[in-house]
Amino acid sequence: MKLKVYADRMSQPSRAVLIFCKVNRIDFEEVRVDISKRQHLTLEFKEINPMRKLPAIVDGRFKLFESHAILIYLSCVFPGVADHWYPADLFKRAKIHSVLDWHHSNLRRGAAEYVKNTTLAPALGLPLDPQAAAEAEKVLFSSLSKIESVWLKGSGRFLLGGNQPSIADLSLVCELMQLEVLDEKDCSRILAPHKNVQQWIEDTKNATRPHFDEVHQILFKAKVKLQKLRSMSINNESSLQTKLASKM
Amino acid sequence: MKLKVYADRMSQPSRAVLIFCKVNRIDFEEVRVDISKRQHLTLEFKEINPMRKLPAIVDGRFKLFESHAILIYLSCVFPGVADHWYPADLFKRAKIHSVLDWHHSNLRRGAAEYVKNTTLAPALGLPLDPQAAAEAEKVLFSSLSKIESVWLKGSGRFLLGGNQPSIADLSLVCELMQLEVLDEKDCSRILAPHKNVQQWIEDTKNATRPHFDEVHQILFKAKVKLQKLRSMSINNESSLQTKLASKM
Repeated sequence: MKLKVYADRMSQPSRAVLIFCKVNRIDFEEVRVDISKRQHLTLEFKEINPMRKLPAIVDGRFKLFESHAILIYLSCVFPGVADHWYPADLFKRAKIHSVLDWHHSNLRRGAAEYVKNTTLAPALGLPLDPQAAAEAEKVLFSSLSKIESVWLKGSGRFLLGGNQPSIADLSLVCELMQLEVLDEKDCSRILAPHKNVQQWIEDTKNATRPHFDEVHQILFKAKVKLQKLRSMSINNESSLQTKLASKM
Repeated sequence: MKLKVYADRMSQPSRAVLIFCKVNRIDFEEVRVDISKRQHLTLEFKEINPMRKLPAIVDGRFKLFESHAILIYLSCVFPGVADHWYPADLFKRAKIHSVLDWHHSNLRRGAAEYVKNTTLAPALGLPLDPQAAAEAEKVLFSSLSKIESVWLKGSGRFLLGGNQPSIADLSLVCELMQLEVLDEKDCSRILAPHKNVQQWIEDTKNATRPHFDEVHQILFKAKVKLQKLRSMSINNESSLQTKLASKM
């Protein structure tokens, strides 16, 4: 039975798993679960993931959720996956776990909360929260500095000094890609001080093309839509919500 | 060269790593880094962990931080560690990764933020924040429900239906132990609705005694100190801060 990947391409960990499968030529079926339509809250999806989050996979009788756990599992069970994604070497593997664990409370928390509270909340039926955005901005800025000064400190182009990407590069870059939906000036303000981070994002894109771009199409479309809405100075939240939800 | 574990026993992930080493008879040296004395912010400790967080380990030339990454590494490199802590079986291992990943954004976030913002902040030189506490409480309550309805759903006494504890049991139970420093009524209010969680905490303690109690001594002392301060109705924050810091 073919691997099933339950995903919403508007979710950054979903995108990481989809790109990973495509780059590694894993034979899988993408089952779209639309968060904006609350499809992740259905009883049907609860059978797949009782936490009602995306992504999740079903591989035969085996069910799994949490994107990092999924990426590790897929790296181990599909023999075609190249070693650099999740090296067999215990020391390299330990360092990748360290990045992935760090990610949860740092980059993910900062980026996701910032984008939600400055931009996406209305599309999810929530109010924008400037105080939460300000706190998330601090976490995001600190995380970007640490990526540059710690994780990208090695000689290679990727995290931990690698010459080829690992699952950590894919997870973190997909997280950062959501900054695309911000106002362009704001996105530049956040990323401009971090030249090495920008180069690393480009290198990770290049290493996973054309799948990276294909899976991110939905995000680029949302970006254009949001830019149009901004330039039309539509500040009415309910209108923004309707227009965004129809796109996502 | 002996494994070095840099830890502050007031930090719950530090306690998990220390208990793990002791239960598995790993020969190690505990290097105490006192967070209340800001020893984790020294240049010396930055050489060990550039993120300036605890715990961290040095094993020969190899340095590692993030407690989950450390627990996995130790399980893999020390042959005396029994399989149940981090099973070689890929499916069991994947499920443990799933619990550990979930933990970061759920139980850890809820419990640590709640305890900080209701109780420990003054000892860290920070103000108490009732709004942050209320938000953390929601995450904590939801996490406890999910532990009971999802992770403890199996037939065994431990997470994922295990008959013996894994590194996930140890990490999550150590996180929950910090609730001990709360006002006793508040701690009961939080845990009382979750009988299976309470039983699982007891089972994990029993499976790791006497090391569990020994490593938690500092927490039990802090609990007594805080209870005394409460019963003396000392509400002055600066006084509480001085008295707590001297204990920790």
